[in-house]
Amino acid sequence: MIKVGIIGGTGYTGVELLRILVTHPGVELSIITSRREAGTRVAELFPNLRDYVDLSFTELNVAKLTDCDVVFSATPNGVAMSYARQLLAAGVRLIDIAADFRIKEQSVWERWYQMSHACPELLEEAVYGLPELYRDRIRNARLIANPGCYPTAVILGLLPLLETDSVQVTTLIADAKSGVSGAGRRAKIGSLLAEAGDSLKAYSVPGHRHGPEIHQVLQDVGGPEVELTFVPHLVPMIRGIHATLYAQARSALDPQALYVKRYDGEPFVDVLPVGHHPDTRSVRGSNFCRIAVHRLGNGNRFVVLSVIDNLVKGASGQAVQNMNIMFGLDESTGLRSPPLLP
Amino acid sequence: MIKVGIIGGTGYTGVELLRILVTHPGVELSIITSRREAGTRVAELFPNLRDYVDLSFTELNVAKLTDCDVVFSATPNGVAMSYARQLLAAGVRLIDIAADFRIKEQSVWERWYQMSHACPELLEEAVYGLPELYRDRIRNARLIANPGCYPTAVILGLLPLLETDSVQVTTLIADAKSGVSGAGRRAKIGSLLAEAGDSLKAYSVPGHRHGPEIHQVLQDVGGPEVELTFVPHLVPMIRGIHATLYAQARSALDPQALYVKRYDGEPFVDVLPVGHHPDTRSVRGSNFCRIAVHRLGNGNRFVVLSVIDNLVKGASGQAVQNMNIMFGLDESTGLRSPPLLP
Amino acid sequence: MIKVGIIGGTGYTGVELLRILVTHPGVELSIITSRREAGTRVAELFPNLRDYVDLSFTELNVAKLTDCDVVFSATPNGVAMSYARQLLAAGVRLIDIAADFRIKEQSVWERWYQMSHACPELLEEAVYGLPELYRDRIRNARLIANPGCYPTAVILGLLPLLETDSVQVTTLIADAKSGVSGAGRRAKIGSLLAEAGDSLKAYSVPGHRHGPEIHQVLQDVGGPEVELTFVPHLVPMIRGIHATLYAQARSALDPQALYVKRYDGEPFVDVLPVGHHPDTRSVRGSNFCRIAVHRLGNGNRFVVLSVIDNLVKGASGQAVQNMNIMFGLDESTGLRSPPLLP
Amino acid sequence: MIKVGIIGGTGYTGVELLRILVTHPGVELSIITSRREAGTRVAELFPNLRDYVDLSFTELNVAKLTDCDVVFSATPNGVAMSYARQLLAAGVRLIDIAADFRIKEQSVWERWYQMSHACPELLEEAVYGLPELYRDRIRNARLIANPGCYPTAVILGLLPLLETDSVQVTTLIADAKSGVSGAGRRAKIGSLLAEAGDSLKAYSVPGHRHGPEIHQVLQDVGGPEVELTFVPHLVPMIRGIHATLYAQARSALDPQALYVKRYDGEPFVDVLPVGHHPDTRSVRGSNFCRIAVHRLGNGNRFVVLSVIDNLVKGASGQAVQNMNIMFGLDESTGLRSPPLLP
Repeated sequence: MIKVGIIGGTGYTGVELLRILVTHPGVELSIITSRREAGTRVAELFPNLRDYVDLSFTELNVAKLTDCDVVFSATPNGVAMSYARQLLAAGVRLIDIAADFRIKEQSVWERWYQMSHACPELLEEAVYGLPELYRDRIRNARLIANPGCYPTAVILGLLPLLETDSVQVTTLIADAKSGVSGAGRRAKIGSLLAEAGDSLKAYSVPGHRHGPEIHQVLQDVGGPEVELTFVPHLVPMIRGIHATLYAQARSALDPQALYVKRYDGEPFVDVLPVGHHPDTRSVRGSNFCRIAVHRLGNGNRFVVLSVIDNLVKGASGQAVQNMNIMFGLDESTGLRSPPLLP
Repeated sequence: MIKVGIIGGTGYTGVELLRILVTHPGVELSIITSRREAGTRVAELFPNLRDYVDLSFTELNVAKLTDCDVVFSATPNGVAMSYARQLLAAGVRLIDIAADFRIKEQSVWERWYQMSHACPELLEEAVYGLPELYRDRIRNARLIANPGCYPTAVILGLLPLLETDSVQVTTLIADAKSGVSGAGRRAKIGSLLAEAGDSLKAYSVPGHRHGPEIHQVLQDVGGPEVELTFVPHLVPMIRGIHATLYAQARSALDPQALYVKRYDGEPFVDVLPVGHHPDTRSVRGSNFCRIAVHRLGNGNRFVVLSVIDNLVKGASGQAVQNMNIMFGLDESTGLRSPPLLP
Repeated sequence: MIKVGIIGGTGYTGVELLRILVTHPGVELSIITSRREAGTRVAELFPNLRDYVDLSFTELNVAKLTDCDVVFSATPNGVAMSYARQLLAAGVRLIDIAADFRIKEQSVWERWYQMSHACPELLEEAVYGLPELYRDRIRNARLIANPGCYPTAVILGLLPLLETDSVQVTTLIADAKSGVSGAGRRAKIGSLLAEAGDSLKAYSVPGHRHGPEIHQVLQDVGGPEVELTFVPHLVPMIRGIHATLYAQARSALDPQALYVKRYDGEPFVDVLPVGHHPDTRSVRGSNFCRIAVHRLGNGNRFVVLSVIDNLVKGASGQAVQNMNIMFGLDESTGLRSPPLLP
Repeated sequence: MIKVGIIGGTGYTGVELLRILVTHPGVELSIITSRREAGTRVAELFPNLRDYVDLSFTELNVAKLTDCDVVFSATPNGVAMSYARQLLAAGVRLIDIAADFRIKEQSVWERWYQMSHACPELLEEAVYGLPELYRDRIRNARLIANPGCYPTAVILGLLPLLETDSVQVTTLIADAKSGVSGAGRRAKIGSLLAEAGDSLKAYSVPGHRHGPEIHQVLQDVGGPEVELTFVPHLVPMIRGIHATLYAQARSALDPQALYVKRYDGEPFVDVLPVGHHPDTRSVRGSNFCRIAVHRLGNGNRFVVLSVIDNLVKGASGQAVQNMNIMFGLDESTGLRSPPLLP
């Protein structure tokens, strides 16, 4: 049994991680921390976990976590970096669901996250935990930077086109739509049902933190000239991301065959038949990414539709997928429940 | 033109009051205050009011408000009482949309609102602003305690039965359902779309502040033995209250005729035909209360369905209705836009 | 392995049954029928089941179903009764998720469902599939009448009070709220998002089909004088039922202890601590019924809050629970996934 | 007073037209037809109109409509064309809210709408009712083709860029998001709350009827080489369209100044300050189009955000705006109520 610790389990990625791990046959959940909720029973905060979790939140004590085989950090950005060094030194593997280790360039990270990085020496070592791209590195990683939700949907949607040099890389567009759980379990007026309900808006058009993260990976695949316009939108739904991706074709390839082949054997990427349109609910509560690719406009325009559940493949599910790879388990262990529809 | 001031216009009752007043032909909006947003243009905070309101929020300065004919207080509870005395002394009439003057008994108020009352000497004078019951007193009132949203829906639904002594008064039940705007424009985890969306719950079953307010009015009508069980629920919608009211019949009267007669001529109470079920959207954005009354169970059980828009008839619309009465205008001035459906 | 057939799997109870059965370790899904969708792959209609179900819908052919150990009927009302006799004769056990066998009195059934019953001789034999009340009978039943969604929530909420004769049985009230999936996957204007969204209403106040079903069971427990006022409401959410139950106390008992004891050991009934309020999302996607009991009004009024997922404990999950009992499996097999929150 | 008739008033554009017209000071509503609902009182079908409309639906009788000054056709596509000739011949002006007269090229119309056109000779005469572009022609038009909802949002968003030749016209992209009322008041499984709720999807990516309509107008402005990729999405909200528009810059102009100048004096187009993001609720229930323009990517990419209420500026409100122009009224008569927020 893998001994698991969770730091900061009171947000949505935390409760989702718990929901997945409590029925995972290969793990033993030994500790879960929260400064604010120390002493509270987990099931008191998250009643869906009554009968599943007997633990209470405790104060963060890194020494106690060194007993774990792996620690998930489900904290706000900027927290994991403060104890990463200590955990790794103790031989504990760390999967950071926040953004602390996603950007290789320290100065870029510091500009976007508005703080100094506490352990820049680990940025290079950290492996970006997107199994469909970096599975081999993940296997032996000590430190996983679990991808952001938008990046996961966008990158998986564009990967086959970039890898095969099939599109103009300087005019890529990602028009992305997210449910409000993406904003976290934080008291914010803009996320109230009375504000975000029955309405839609774009936000952060001048620049969003997931922009540089996406660029870094796309450039790793498609070269330094890759340029993407990324526009996120807030949708009145709880879970789900829908990325609508636009690219100018450079070749006459059959995109359907390309996508089917690229993702053949991937347990969590599902390429839909020609002409389909995935809806976000078709992945609700699951680790799937469903993709449909369309060729339009006399064939010179690709439109790719890519959907995930932002809390699963976009966060905690992918984190568990990474753990499974790191510990040699079947990659889909604990992640086999079908999506919830309707 | 009535010169109007608004204190604390950054919440939902504030923006709703503005929405109504900007097309009201008889008023001139002269001042609107907010501590937190002083200096901000109203239309910056509430983009629906772009082109309608040119004012900016200012710091509260009671002296400046004494120029007004009437002041609406759209603040949290406990604020209006701190400047009421001064405004009335200056000859300004005051309509408090919050709860400071709704309860006659000071000790009851202080127990439920957990603070000392700053001007208990005005409790007796304050008129409970439910026009359908207290229109004559409203006309000459200096100080209006504008009713709560739940009380408005519940009282209008039960009034005809209590006034005619048609039901057992000790076993009344009000099962009430409210949209989330009733919780105000306040950053609260429980009101997030990701928390309150796609879910329903009861709350405050052991006791809710609107309980004593409802009791006070129902007892004024039906006698001191009136006893009501009041259970509020939070519904995943933005606006709207639906009160489902249960009472044991004491007589064989035809409730439909009773309700039609009682509310004949009332501009904002609409009694639906026999067998109907009002939905909350049928009053969305309007000052109407729609009521349907059903007689069940061999005739000894009344079920009354009463719906309002909590921000209009349950708050700012009723406040304007009261202002119209106080200043001798047609009661529906500024309140004639039809509900928005769908 | 239990060989399972499903008749009429294109509605919400059908897709939910599939979602549960595809990860159930003890069953083999061998056939699924639909007149309208014969030939269509199941995963084409329900994309959440891609990778889980390889079957296509077929025309109903009762002879082919006789190979099954058990057949679930997830059809509209009035269909199961037309093939029940034949299946039972062939030794196949039948679980009807619709209403054909729920009412013992043929004339009552025919009045409420507006058709003649096709096999009234089975009404007596059919076992009402509420394990918490009739577990022993379910074990050996050939024919299960799976309870309705409202009845499940209401009966589980009232059972302890009626069994102990703790309340006045003639003045019971069930104010019930349901998500729109309860209306089925049927094209109906009233169920459109643009109609039912952002709004709430009561419906069928003069009488609802689940009324006689609830009465029959409550009278079986509490005697023929039991009388309940049942008012259902339509809530703008997808899944979930919240029953708010009102009863006049007849004794001074401690309801919390009563409920805890009554449901001790029940795998799917969760009695919340004193003072709690369950929300429907706390059971989303799961077979739990969560109950909180409050004592109010100087102790003579009980208010019970009971929530279920209408498609799981209120339909397909309970059907699987019944199957587990009938075939000697652990009762919670296939039903252990935690609720999905948020 | 303008004498108004409405054909086919049982859909969402019908009820919205009524909502606007009942408080319009310059019109007299004399007839409203519906085959299916002939004999039903309007207020019975649309309870928000109780106390506002006394009419009942009648069978369509073109002769009776010839008394009107103007007729609005709020029917499904393909109906208005069957009586247009007769009405115009009688001197009645016709505003078709459906699509019958929007496409100039008969063969294009027939391909997209899958029927023969009943009066192609009127296609040339019909004026596309977008006041911001064709106000002068509207003034004297006998026949108005009221624009579609997506086209209104997209065209108003792109107009200033195309008119000034500021962008590459062959790589335009419109990623559009619509609430479900855009699908009409029709019983369709895909529009159920349980299907479309809490989910988002793209649809009609290979081609949508509004594509050729948008192209026709954009080409009228920007020349025949204009090419737009148009991808519509279904959003779980009732009203509202958000068009996110992407264009490659061809010049160094300041887009903010351009948009402000272009729409200066327009009563219903509101250009937001630099850096803003309009949400759809900021126009809910109103005839406004709010636009924000962003310049990104070293200045060579424009992202324009354009929001409307699909039932108002995208349908019935714009129809009334057109009527006002046609009859010499102030253009905003009857359209001055502020948006409903929250």
